Amino acid sequence: MSEFRIGLLGRGTVGDAFAVLLREHGARVERITGLRPVLSGVLTRDGGAFEEILERSDLIVELIGGIEPARDYVLRAMRAGRHVVTANKQLLSRYGEELFEAAREAGVQLRFEGAVAGAVPVVRVLQESLAGAHIERVHGIVNGTTNFILSEMARAGLSYPEALAEAQRLGYAEADPAEDVGGRDAAAKMAILARLAFDTPVRLEQVRYEGIEQITSDDMEYARELGLGLKLVGTAERIDGGLSVRVHPLFLYPGHPLASINGPFNAVTVESREITEITMSGPGAGGPQTATAVLGDVVSAMIPPATAPMATKALELVDDVVSGFYLHLQVADQPGVLATVAGILSTHQVSVKSVVQRGLEEQARLVMVVHPVLESRFQAAMAEIAELPVLRAPPRAIRVLDEQFG
Amino acid sequence: MSEFRIGLLGRGTVGDAFAVLLREHGARVERITGLRPVLSGVLTRDGGAFEEILERSDLIVELIGGIEPARDYVLRAMRAGRHVVTANKQLLSRYGEELFEAAREAGVQLRFEGAVAGAVPVVRVLQESLAGAHIERVHGIVNGTTNFILSEMARAGLSYPEALAEAQRLGYAEADPAEDVGGRDAAAKMAILARLAFDTPVRLEQVRYEGIEQITSDDMEYARELGLGLKLVGTAERIDGGLSVRVHPLFLYPGHPLASINGPFNAVTVESREITEITMSGPGAGGPQTATAVLGDVVSAMIPPATAPMATKALELVDDVVSGFYLHLQVADQPGVLATVAGILSTHQVSVKSVVQRGLEEQARLVMVVHPVLESRFQAAMAEIAELPVLRAPPRAIRVLDEQFG
Repeated sequence: MSEFRIGLLGRGTVGDAFAVLLREHGARVERITGLRPVLSGVLTRDGGAFEEILERSDLIVELIGGIEPARDYVLRAMRAGRHVVTANKQLLSRYGEELFEAAREAGVQLRFEGAVAGAVPVVRVLQESLAGAHIERVHGIVNGTTNFILSEMARAGLSYPEALAEAQRLGYAEADPAEDVGGRDAAAKMAILARLAFDTPVRLEQVRYEGIEQITSDDMEYARELGLGLKLVGTAERIDGGLSVRVHPLFLYPGHPLASINGPFNAVTVESREITEITMSGPGAGGPQTATAVLGDVVSAMIPPATAPMATKALELVDDVVSGFYLHLQVADQPGVLATVAGILSTHQVSVKSVVQRGLEEQARLVMVVHPVLESRFQAAMAEIAELPVLRAPPRAIRVLDEQFG
Repeated sequence: MSEFRIGLLGRGTVGDAFAVLLREHGARVERITGLRPVLSGVLTRDGGAFEEILERSDLIVELIGGIEPARDYVLRAMRAGRHVVTANKQLLSRYGEELFEAAREAGVQLRFEGAVAGAVPVVRVLQESLAGAHIERVHGIVNGTTNFILSEMARAGLSYPEALAEAQRLGYAEADPAEDVGGRDAAAKMAILARLAFDTPVRLEQVRYEGIEQITSDDMEYARELGLGLKLVGTAERIDGGLSVRVHPLFLYPGHPLASINGPFNAVTVESREITEITMSGPGAGGPQTATAVLGDVVSAMIPPATAPMATKALELVDDVVSGFYLHLQVADQPGVLATVAGILSTHQVSVKSVVQRGLEEQARLVMVVHPVLESRFQAAMAEIAELPVLRAPPRAIRVLDEQFG
């Protein structure tokens, strides 16, 4: 089996996570691509020589960040015929055209899913899935820090400084949060998305942006009264044959696909006549998320995926699973019914989470939600309950997804 | 410039929409791929000969649906060395392994984004973006008909027969809705997704499924009381080293990413340790949506996308855009303030949508939302308002996204 040699530049949070992922999922990547991925060298602040790593790599993963030396390394790698995968939004939003041209000239792939929204696959979807769509507008919550801060202000009534401090405490905001809260990080990402959606070169300097530092809890309160929710939203849209790209705080009416995106999440909505709109959402740019996007790019660069990989590790199909249930009983309104039903459930180790009881003489209803339990066990309890003489109709059950999204 | 010849099998809703898209976006596809896409032949119930079309095509788009003759044509096309793009969920969920093997043997691409969730790019994301992730669970609302019916029951308090009739009237349900409301359509799609997410062959016959015919408006009412929302959800998940694939009505707690998916929409959530979870949503399988997915697949088969396409039709960057605004004024509580402010807004053709006024003596607040207006015009009004002597603090403005998602 041949090797595919990956040179890694940068060993920060994302670089570390990428090295771990590559080790954990190397065998799967090998099965998909037919090539065994190996880390051929790592360039850190303390060691490694770029030229040597380049020499023994088929692909360069650039996770240094910033402009130089990242720009120089990426250009040299592509000119030497190496594919490049990067998560560097600064570089792409300021020197994108230079990099794209270098990739075209060298006939290599330049992939950068991790530069925009972590594992949320907006870059690939814009470049590939929607290659046949005429896009009208892209709306994005592309900065998790500001979305977390605004969510906390709305949820807990915190002031901006309080919510920022909370974000810093939880690791969602840097000690110096200026790039995030000032809107510049989101502006860089919107420049990249606008370039892809509208085939128009957009540099960071051309994106108008505002941040969230001026938002008060007072604004949040009035917004709630008016039925609005506040997000820091990036917009790229066609206007009168031109293109507008901007980032600013934006009130959304409930029902908008971005209105329900809370916490340190990212989400992007793409609108076109053909598709109406599609939305992609998920956690923003954490280490493992961005590393997953980088590895997806690496796999794509290793081999253009043609069809489903061979099914080599077939799992066994499971029939009996754990689920919560809603149980609806129509019963005679007489004493002891709840105790009887609860007793049967308890016998089968089914535990009750909440109950609604309504007495309407012959039409009394007993509705419960039970905690997750093996379905076969719940069905056994149901069968016993169905035999109760107090029942006025067959029992009804509907599954309930656990609050922990189980 | 070379041609890329596409043979189209089937000329129903999706086939028609695909032919239209190909005509409209042919030039863009040519720019991306370097090849000019041409429709080399169309097989309909009334005309065309498969062998002749195959002979003069580089790729076959199969939109006939059903098992035979679609299966025969797809296999013959791949064995003759042609790429195939299909949106046929029946075929893939019942004969997937046979087709995947034929594609591998012939070294051709078999793509099928349109088979699962219209333009929502779940197939590509599972196959490519998440190639480096260990997926734990996939949850999907993959049938728009049932999601519309359940949404109407919840929203308008309709009974199941009433909501079904409404769905049929609006074209969201077939005259014979059995495949949709019985859960079999969703089961076929989940078989395909489970195959991709878990590398395990799953046939439609192995998926347990229930439909929504038994759901009553009564259930919906109790659910609301218990804080739950009801969806028809497909689940594929690892359980104790095995795999469970199933479709059934499922109550969701608010906050779950699928809980806010209403109307004839599709959405899929993918969970893994590395990415936590990502969600993709959009309209289900309408003609233009599915055709957009098919065209995205065709473009990918024409050329593995390496980098951003050349920016040939650069749009002009627009600075002044239309937006609604929230306007927050801290004013002296004296008569005539509202009239003065409204007068200034009106002079600048800014029209007021809603007002909240609170008198607190020196700290009175006047908060308004104005209808969308050119930003420069709103800023001019703001500048004038800022000069008013009754103001106790600088005026504050935050943009509001229009309810029509403008």
